[in-house]
Amino acid sequence: METVYVVKGMTCGHCAGSVTQEIAALPGVEHVDVALDTGKVTVKSETALTEDQVRAAVDEAGYELVGVA
Amino acid sequence: METVYVVKGMTCGHCAGSVTQEIAALPGVEHVDVALDTGKVTVKSETALTEDQVRAAVDEAGYELVGVA
Repeated sequence: METVYVVKGMTCGHCAGSVTQEIAALPGVEHVDVALDTGKVTVKSETALTEDQVRAAVDEAGYELVGVA
Repeated sequence: METVYVVKGMTCGHCAGSVTQEIAALPGVEHVDVALDTGKVTVKSETALTEDQVRAAVDEAGYELVGVA
């Protein structure tokens, strides 16, 4: 399944890398796509992730999950 | 424009994050999509990147660019 999240505060490659790293470490994640211009992060995973799991990962990276796009 | 590269050696979220970080830092990059299962990295950029630019970024992250998919 694929879900698009909106993350606040990513401005550069380092930001994109940190968010990708944390989200890709969640169980079952296969693809992570980061759009630097819009802050949209598209996550494809084998099984459903809860918004809390994704929020915690984004928090861990130092950014803020606004919600599902 | 969008180009798909094959990167060798990415096995986890940390790998995906490092590669994303370095590629997203190249000039004009708008989207980076990492597929952990296949090693394919899709890069969308405003202007063309050379394979050497992408190879250098992947090297910097500690992985190997196999080539364009």
